[in-house]
Amino acid sequence: MLKKIAIFGVGLIGGSFALALKKAGAVEQIVGAGRNSATLQRARELGIIDVIASSVADAVAGADLILIAAPVAQTGAILASIQPHLQAGTIVTDAGSTKSDVVLAARAELGDKIAQFVPGHPIAGREQNGPDAALADLYVGKKVVLAPMPENAEQDVAKVAAAWQQCGAHIHRLSAQQHDAIFAAVSHLPHVLAYALVDEIANKPHAESLFQYAASGFRDFTRIAGSSPEMWRDISLANQDALLHELDAYLLQLTRLRGLLAAGDGAALEAIYGNAQRARHGWISAIEAAEKQNKEGGD
Amino acid sequence: MLKKIAIFGVGLIGGSFALALKKAGAVEQIVGAGRNSATLQRARELGIIDVIASSVADAVAGADLILIAAPVAQTGAILASIQPHLQAGTIVTDAGSTKSDVVLAARAELGDKIAQFVPGHPIAGREQNGPDAALADLYVGKKVVLAPMPENAEQDVAKVAAAWQQCGAHIHRLSAQQHDAIFAAVSHLPHVLAYALVDEIANKPHAESLFQYAASGFRDFTRIAGSSPEMWRDISLANQDALLHELDAYLLQLTRLRGLLAAGDGAALEAIYGNAQRARHGWISAIEAAEKQNKEGGD
Repeated sequence: MLKKIAIFGVGLIGGSFALALKKAGAVEQIVGAGRNSATLQRARELGIIDVIASSVADAVAGADLILIAAPVAQTGAILASIQPHLQAGTIVTDAGSTKSDVVLAARAELGDKIAQFVPGHPIAGREQNGPDAALADLYVGKKVVLAPMPENAEQDVAKVAAAWQQCGAHIHRLSAQQHDAIFAAVSHLPHVLAYALVDEIANKPHAESLFQYAASGFRDFTRIAGSSPEMWRDISLANQDALLHELDAYLLQLTRLRGLLAAGDGAALEAIYGNAQRARHGWISAIEAAEKQNKEGGD
Repeated sequence: MLKKIAIFGVGLIGGSFALALKKAGAVEQIVGAGRNSATLQRARELGIIDVIASSVADAVAGADLILIAAPVAQTGAILASIQPHLQAGTIVTDAGSTKSDVVLAARAELGDKIAQFVPGHPIAGREQNGPDAALADLYVGKKVVLAPMPENAEQDVAKVAAAWQQCGAHIHRLSAQQHDAIFAAVSHLPHVLAYALVDEIANKPHAESLFQYAASGFRDFTRIAGSSPEMWRDISLANQDALLHELDAYLLQLTRLRGLLAAGDGAALEAIYGNAQRARHGWISAIEAAEKQNKEGGD
């Protein structure tokens, strides 16, 4: 049982972490901190946090674990504010969607306390945000990536892992660089592609008649273009190198496909489409098998 | 009440048309035709069709309306087989996803009977195919685009429109060229983009670990890459010009966005993402308002 957890940013991600740990009986007290007092008040009303910290020093004092779940662009500033008050024995982790930039910020801001920071990224979300969107079971069966640094002690990484496991999550370990390369390909690039398509269509003179005929395929394809522009601006810039790498590979792929289409090469197009269909089908089957296993394991 | 409807291709699209008209009591007899006798048998078992045609001549004889709902690449051959038997007073329509190529094929195959062909495209579908996937309410509240040619008599267009309206669909009219330009942008291009991304990822040496971390955003974005490769090869080639036009515009957009990312221009990226988010939000709100109105109208 942890005595005290401090959470900076008590929205969907931080709030769900709090609710899950409370439900698991894994913590005595949860203290909320953040810039938005209305959000903090709401989180206390909803029973997500027990106390609103009166200051950063107050939030950090005596905490076993600190989670930073604010927008990723604020991580550096929050770490800087925590640093002077950070006691030995307190572990800090985060929930940011990018990791190399967070590691850089942590090294810059925490200095000789860097070993107390264990970078993390829970792979879960909803379309809604804020404390009202928080769910005790948001992380059940979901992945949490931890990206330990060479400085981290194994017991500190295990402490963070244990907290997420209490939330029902599965722990995966990657280096910050591996993490950012993987998520550039399977998450950040698709977001950029979806934003680019909707912006492109919205800017056409006949946008209205185009949207009028867009159907369910377009709706699913562009769902992620409904995400927060600020958040995705920050992620794009934070993971600039890996995202540029994936974007260039995709531009090459699309240019190749354009050539096949212009040449009327139906067999080559069908081979690409067929390879994609098979790969996606295999992936979906693997997900469904894993979900089934999770369910059976939980019975 | 129509006396006889002949349907070439009794899968999801043709089968749902048949079930809807039967449910509406709008037709006395539905005759099924096609290359696959197992599919025809199954459609008869399911009560989708009343009779399996013994020949094309048998299917066409005395029909008020003929729907071609086979894969779009077969449309020309089916029209050619129908032509010698086509009597005055019988109207032919189709359900193909592209229209300019169908108009070309119809002009080539039907000759002086061209006025009897009214091109159409129901905007509805499911992930499943075949007669077992057919639903009597597949078209309720959905759009059907008719793309009449100068040769068509208004009463013949109205006859096709009336049949689709009996299925619960809303009729829209576009020229074949307008239709193909619109669907290149909001349907064909997204399919190509999704296929290209999944193929790209599947071909990487670390594909397995990439798929392992792909989550719900990737799942929705790539859902359309689960579609039939043969069908989308045919659509890509049939709508080659309009699709190339959209693909080039998108490549330009993506190259521009790449430049902004490489320059670290967060404000410009946020403007694109924000414009996309607002446009998509407006579109979804309009869809939901229309759905609500449909429901109220139906009460």
